[in-house]
Amino acid sequence: MKLLDIFGTLKKDMNVIERQLSHSIDSEHPLLNETSLHLLKAGGKRLRPAFVLLGGKYGTYDLDRLSNVAVALELIHMASLVHDDVIDDADTRRGQPTVKSKWDNRIAMYTGDYIYAKALMIVARLENPQIHQVLSKAMVQMSIGEMEQIRDFFNTGQSIRRYLLRIRRKTALLIAISCQLGGIAANAPKEITRELYRYGYNVGMAFQIRDDVLDLCGTEKQLGKPPGSDLRQGNITIPVLYALQDESRREPLLAEITRIHNANGETDVTTAVRMVRESQGIQEAELLADRYIQKAMHALSQLPAGRTQKHLQEIAKFVANRSH
Amino acid sequence: MKLLDIFGTLKKDMNVIERQLSHSIDSEHPLLNETSLHLLKAGGKRLRPAFVLLGGKYGTYDLDRLSNVAVALELIHMASLVHDDVIDDADTRRGQPTVKSKWDNRIAMYTGDYIYAKALMIVARLENPQIHQVLSKAMVQMSIGEMEQIRDFFNTGQSIRRYLLRIRRKTALLIAISCQLGGIAANAPKEITRELYRYGYNVGMAFQIRDDVLDLCGTEKQLGKPPGSDLRQGNITIPVLYALQDESRREPLLAEITRIHNANGETDVTTAVRMVRESQGIQEAELLADRYIQKAMHALSQLPAGRTQKHLQEIAKFVANRSH
Repeated sequence: MKLLDIFGTLKKDMNVIERQLSHSIDSEHPLLNETSLHLLKAGGKRLRPAFVLLGGKYGTYDLDRLSNVAVALELIHMASLVHDDVIDDADTRRGQPTVKSKWDNRIAMYTGDYIYAKALMIVARLENPQIHQVLSKAMVQMSIGEMEQIRDFFNTGQSIRRYLLRIRRKTALLIAISCQLGGIAANAPKEITRELYRYGYNVGMAFQIRDDVLDLCGTEKQLGKPPGSDLRQGNITIPVLYALQDESRREPLLAEITRIHNANGETDVTTAVRMVRESQGIQEAELLADRYIQKAMHALSQLPAGRTQKHLQEIAKFVANRSH
Repeated sequence: MKLLDIFGTLKKDMNVIERQLSHSIDSEHPLLNETSLHLLKAGGKRLRPAFVLLGGKYGTYDLDRLSNVAVALELIHMASLVHDDVIDDADTRRGQPTVKSKWDNRIAMYTGDYIYAKALMIVARLENPQIHQVLSKAMVQMSIGEMEQIRDFFNTGQSIRRYLLRIRRKTALLIAISCQLGGIAANAPKEITRELYRYGYNVGMAFQIRDDVLDLCGTEKQLGKPPGSDLRQGNITIPVLYALQDESRREPLLAEITRIHNANGETDVTTAVRMVRESQGIQEAELLADRYIQKAMHALSQLPAGRTQKHLQEIAKFVANRSH
């Protein structure tokens, strides 16, 4: 289910954005068209564009302006995914072959570079310096987050704080600025764009924690990739960190992760996945995600009541409970 | 010799930019600091910053503003080089190990992403929408150019036109906008920034053609990498395309290139290099580079006479004759 199905009111505008997304990646270069279209067609929830539009409801809602921001943010998200797949050595995403597996790493890298640049070109149409400042700052943090992820592969000694800082950069920031920039592009008051940012940040944190839980608890059909992919590639997520805090489970789980590391991930991970599932790790992670959702709801409560506030509440609930 | 040694007057300002470059890549992330500093220390001619400053001389020269543009453009150049090294599978550049050989491809990719984002952050300080528009448009073209390079590896059937279009995107555009954006950031009149662009574009074309000639004719010491690197990686440059037009040399050269291709470049390329050197290819390429320099000089002749015009002439001459 795409998020746009949750609320009918945005549907028309989301369809406009979907068409602009397809149009935006058009180039005279056939291979770039092919790789970018492949990425676009692989789908996604279009969460960031929806947040931009909803943020825009708090100011002068102008679809022409907002759609540029929405398209740019979805493109930046797509570009980060295609670079992420190079790092993760991922063969599938959302049940589709990745660019790096269908073509190669070099092509995935330049497809990402191309989509980043297209995003910047689209957002430059708005002629709003503040948007560039917010966006470029977030992109710096995102790339630091990606680098941290590499450094932390198979690092079972990392703190919870470090995990949280990493997902903040990797996921939460882009969602936060999607809400914020929707408001800014619509000239919403600063007090409002600040709460929009806060809402988005907390939803983004919950979103990523939920994602990390799903990778351990979901089925291959739900995930579009085999469960335990994070462990296989050495991405030590919060349910695992919590499970490692359990003295009775720590040593066997560590041994299993070391075994996976030594096999460079090319081994069965079901034992490790089962160990984490049997621990309190999943439940504790879900509790933490709930706390972030509560914080998001608190930020929302600072915003003017109305239909948009309600929609944002619905999305926060969706994020907390989603199974795909 | 760094270009700044050509003209004393810019030296002080170029030193400011050098310091800002070091400062700009600072981050709390130790590995990113290390890779970015490694790139920075590997040097380079700082051609793009020099062009920005000289372009700025045609308007209200404000080093604070111009240095942001100069640093951003040099960073974009550096980021494109580090991604280029991933594609080229290059082990050395300017006599130094590349990021991808010293660390790995994934780290090189994210170092590039980080430096791109930092460049955008720095240029966003200027709050000038036109600069973002020019820059992002060029970045789109640059990434298309990189993709074309992959597609054209070992493509001995490509036309001269196709080669020229590729180096336009790969090299000339960024140099063209360096000159142009210097003018724009200094609020120079439009007629002037247009000629600055034209000058930079033609110098950039000559620069890349000269680079391609040097790769065949230079020594390992001059180049900082073994000669014939382009042929080894399948980058078919204009001296080779010209040599292939010579009926008496075409077949043996094609056979030699096919042999290099089949060996994935892991073979001796001196025979192919010698074949091209013995053809008219080098001389014809140099003639074409000269024609671009003449066009650059013509653009310059449209600009107000004075010291800056003279400096730009000197750089054009340097580019045409450089041996490193």
